Amino acid sequence: SKDTWEKESFVGVVTGLAWTAVGGEILFVESSISKGKGNLTLTGNLGDVMKESAVLALEYLKSHVDKLGLDAAVLEENNFHVHVPEGAIPKDGPSAGITMVTSIASILSGRKVKPRLAMTGEITLRGKVLPVGGIKEKILAAKRAGIQDIILSRENRKDVDEIKPIYLEGLNFHFVETILDVLDLALEA
Amino acid sequence: SKDTWEKESFVGVVTGLAWTAVGGEILFVESSISKGKGNLTLTGNLGDVMKESAVLALEYLKSHVDKLGLDAAVLEENNFHVHVPEGAIPKDGPSAGITMVTSIASILSGRKVKPRLAMTGEITLRGKVLPVGGIKEKILAAKRAGIQDIILSRENRKDVDEIKPIYLEGLNFHFVETILDVLDLALEA
Amino acid sequence: SKDTWEKESFVGVVTGLAWTAVGGEILFVESSISKGKGNLTLTGNLGDVMKESAVLALEYLKSHVDKLGLDAAVLEENNFHVHVPEGAIPKDGPSAGITMVTSIASILSGRKVKPRLAMTGEITLRGKVLPVGGIKEKILAAKRAGIQDIILSRENRKDVDEIKPIYLEGLNFHFVETILDVLDLALEA
Amino acid sequence: SKDTWEKESFVGVVTGLAWTAVGGEILFVESSISKGKGNLTLTGNLGDVMKESAVLALEYLKSHVDKLGLDAAVLEENNFHVHVPEGAIPKDGPSAGITMVTSIASILSGRKVKPRLAMTGEITLRGKVLPVGGIKEKILAAKRAGIQDIILSRENRKDVDEIKPIYLEGLNFHFVETILDVLDLALEA
Amino acid sequence: SKDTWEKESFVGVVTGLAWTAVGGEILFVESSISKGKGNLTLTGNLGDVMKESAVLALEYLKSHVDKLGLDAAVLEENNFHVHVPEGAIPKDGPSAGITMVTSIASILSGRKVKPRLAMTGEITLRGKVLPVGGIKEKILAAKRAGIQDIILSRENRKDVDEIKPIYLEGLNFHFVETILDVLDLALEA
Amino acid sequence: SKDTWEKESFVGVVTGLAWTAVGGEILFVESSISKGKGNLTLTGNLGDVMKESAVLALEYLKSHVDKLGLDAAVLEENNFHVHVPEGAIPKDGPSAGITMVTSIASILSGRKVKPRLAMTGEITLRGKVLPVGGIKEKILAAKRAGIQDIILSRENRKDVDEIKPIYLEGLNFHFVETILDVLDLALEA
Ligand SMILES: [Ca+2]
Ligand SMILES: [Ca+2]
Ligand SMILES: [Ca+2]
Ligand SMILES: [Ca+2]
Ligand SMILES: [Ca+2]
Ligand SMILES: [Ca+2]
Ligand SMILES: [Ca+2]
Ligand SMILES: [Ca+2]
Ligand SMILES: [Ca+2]
Ligand SMILES: [Ca+2]
Ligand SMILES: [Ca+2]
Ligand SMILES: [Ca+2]
Repeated sequence: SKDTWEKESFVGVVTGLAWTAVGGEILFVESSISKGKGNLTLTGNLGDVMKESAVLALEYLKSHVDKLGLDAAVLEENNFHVHVPEGAIPKDGPSAGITMVTSIASILSGRKVKPRLAMTGEITLRGKVLPVGGIKEKILAAKRAGIQDIILSRENRKDVDEIKPIYLEGLNFHFVETILDVLDLALEA
Repeated sequence: SKDTWEKESFVGVVTGLAWTAVGGEILFVESSISKGKGNLTLTGNLGDVMKESAVLALEYLKSHVDKLGLDAAVLEENNFHVHVPEGAIPKDGPSAGITMVTSIASILSGRKVKPRLAMTGEITLRGKVLPVGGIKEKILAAKRAGIQDIILSRENRKDVDEIKPIYLEGLNFHFVETILDVLDLALEA
Repeated sequence: SKDTWEKESFVGVVTGLAWTAVGGEILFVESSISKGKGNLTLTGNLGDVMKESAVLALEYLKSHVDKLGLDAAVLEENNFHVHVPEGAIPKDGPSAGITMVTSIASILSGRKVKPRLAMTGEITLRGKVLPVGGIKEKILAAKRAGIQDIILSRENRKDVDEIKPIYLEGLNFHFVETILDVLDLALEA
Repeated sequence: SKDTWEKESFVGVVTGLAWTAVGGEILFVESSISKGKGNLTLTGNLGDVMKESAVLALEYLKSHVDKLGLDAAVLEENNFHVHVPEGAIPKDGPSAGITMVTSIASILSGRKVKPRLAMTGEITLRGKVLPVGGIKEKILAAKRAGIQDIILSRENRKDVDEIKPIYLEGLNFHFVETILDVLDLALEA
Repeated sequence: SKDTWEKESFVGVVTGLAWTAVGGEILFVESSISKGKGNLTLTGNLGDVMKESAVLALEYLKSHVDKLGLDAAVLEENNFHVHVPEGAIPKDGPSAGITMVTSIASILSGRKVKPRLAMTGEITLRGKVLPVGGIKEKILAAKRAGIQDIILSRENRKDVDEIKPIYLEGLNFHFVETILDVLDLALEA
Repeated sequence: SKDTWEKESFVGVVTGLAWTAVGGEILFVESSISKGKGNLTLTGNLGDVMKESAVLALEYLKSHVDKLGLDAAVLEENNFHVHVPEGAIPKDGPSAGITMVTSIASILSGRKVKPRLAMTGEITLRGKVLPVGGIKEKILAAKRAGIQDIILSRENRKDVDEIKPIYLEGLNFHFVETILDVLDLALEA
């Protein structure tokens, strides 16, 4: 079924943009937290590269607790679970990296994700946001789903510039360099 | 053999609806609890996606203990086992999600599952119930097995509307949005 | 070599009935117990479904300690090992379920298994005994091996009714619904 | 290279008989013990069924400590290692079972294995010794290697009876029913 | 996208040189540290040989803490994560060894990596730097990316000598024998 | 590149002889030690049989601490790492057994390995040294690399006797029966 933006904001739920065999699509990344020992569980029929994005996301947060104002104890005394519905569809690739780090940061900080916002971009361990492919298809999917704000790597600006302006109407683009930029834009105060 | 609804209600036993190569079928999801450390064991010849449904179900309950009035200590000091008979038949897909979360919630709370009730739907980590396929075949199977109440995702209502009314006689449909809706409908007070 | 019933009864040794490419056969399920932490070891060249039967058997006993009058500490402070000779022959399928649960219950309780008794049936986590295939071939094998009493699921009664009476001479059938029925019939007081 | 019996007896070293594509062969099973937590390590390019024989052997000893006069603490506070030279040759099958249980029992008790003795037979968890194949080829290999005493399952007596007496000259056969029989015959007082 | 040297130096980020199907390329190795028990996590779509390089790198540092002036407690009380962007590209081979050991040593010591520096070379457990292939293509890639200093194994000097001088203009080569040489050259005081 | 003997002796570094598709070669086995719990890490693109040699080597040393004058606490309170450069080349087979046990014994005792010495031979758990193949090619490789002393299994003497004397000039052969013989010959006092 065609997915649309969720009217309600949830802590830990972030809208990503995926590029599939049949075109662009929005997807949701969900995170939860429960008492534990810092373990990470991944579900949603994810391939190895997509699983690595979640591992990177959690490790980035663990190794930057001070910079991010997070509580180190919360990271050590809980387990984390990242899920990408829908379970019947295999998913892979690095482009959900910024969606995953935002989702986990939201659940950790209790800050909601801004509504009508979607994002796509690979992350690295030092917090850089790398460009990804399928930008045109992803933007069309975001528009169909009612998204208003889109976060992309600064290195993807050239891909947006190549799209006819009519397709970009009503969309605000936010080009970022680092995960810190993403979290500032995506999480409500 | 053709399965029918069970006259007796059991704590932890829930009737699901499956869609197989030979049509719709009812299946049972069984859960048990025994002293342990919060581990989850899965049996019944289950594929990876179906196993992920059980992982999601337990994690949803763990991360919502307060909202659900569950005892966090019970989740930490016991092991859980989810089984889907019959062992000779491979089973997969996300559609047993709501059946699994109801089964584990029943065993955790000690509340019985209402009789003559069946269900099918994917779950997500935030508690949303997603639509699934094979609705017509599943409804026919439920009717043959003597089921009276069926729980489906609200997004599957359109699939029910396309079925000839004669096939729906004697069945009550409950369309839900969240796992909380499912548990309210399925568990006896 | 052709196996026959064992003159001596052993605690933990139970005769099962298997259905193979070359007809029915009797097999033995053996269990042992040694100091440990509740772990289960499985040997005998067993396929995944047959291994799941043993996991189900032990979990059923763990989650019904009170009902069965077992000592919970014995389950937590020992390891269990279930073996099905002969190691050169691959074995699979769910039909050894009742044989396995009887074997482990025998070793746990110290009660011997009644002589000249064989059984076949799938178990579920709630303790139901499900019907299995190959009933005619299994009964012929049991007779050849000198068995006198056979335990089957009540849902397999119809399969016995279809066999010519001459093949059933000298055999007593016990049709059961639950694991509790099996243990009552199989274990000496 | 052609192996022969070892002039020296070693604690933990036992001569087995194997049946390979190129005929019978003798092989050695070696066991060692070192401080640990009861773990078992297996080396020698062993297939799954042969590994299960070693698991069975150690479990048999663990679950019969009292009957065998072993010290339970020694089993819990040490690791065990079973090796079958030569590493370049894949080995499999259940017939080294009695060789393995004798090797571990020797290392546990400190009792040497009698010289010029070889054996072949499958073991079960309750301590039964089952017959194995390739008896004629194995006996010829034992003779070539200078073996004088051979331990076999009682159920393999018929295979020996079919061999021409001239091939059996100088060999003493010991037909056994249980692991206890094997240990009595193989270990020096 | 074409990568260039990073204007900013980061602790834990080191530029390596890779040789791919389409020619030479620069790549980054990133390391992070977070509270833990000395575990190592590896991401970036790495093959087994490249993963072994990271294992070797960490083990070299662990087994030379005194020589390197590192704090043994820091190695025991933290987890380490080594990542090689970009996740969509499979990477393998031993030639990132010196890049990895420099990255982890940087994060451990807090010393930044010198700017406009790249390196390629296999490491061994005793700290030797072995020569690697694709030197010409790697040097061209380094030049394109604005690199000024290149570290290579002394055994690769002959490969550099075979390259036309014009391609080497503006590049300084540092030929090394040991990991200690690499760390002296690469880490700021 | 063609490897030669190392002018410097290192603790834990031992020269082995390998037989590859392209003839004989020398290889190095390196071991290191760092604080830990007795775990063994293996790197160098090693096949299962070669990994088993390292497991055997460490287990031999663990189970003979008294005989070898080793400190049992050192074995329990450290981790061991065995590496065989070069990572790009897959390596397998049992013939590095004596090289591995010498390398670990060197690192454990702090005794250096004698210079210009190479070795090849399979080990067993009881400490026997078994013959290996490719002796002629290995000896030629050793000579090319400047080796003076070669340790072989006594059962490989016949293979040396078949080589023309001119190829053996300047080489001293040491034929051994046990690991103890190897360690006596290889480690400096
Ligand atoms: Ca969708
Ligand atoms: Ca949907
Ligand atoms: Ca059915
Ligand atoms: Ca049924
Ligand atoms: Ca049989
Ligand atoms: Ca038999
Ligand atoms: Ca041989
Ligand atoms: Ca040999
Ligand atoms: Ca690139
Ligand atoms: Ca890039
Ligand atoms: Ca070489
Ligand atoms: Ca080399």
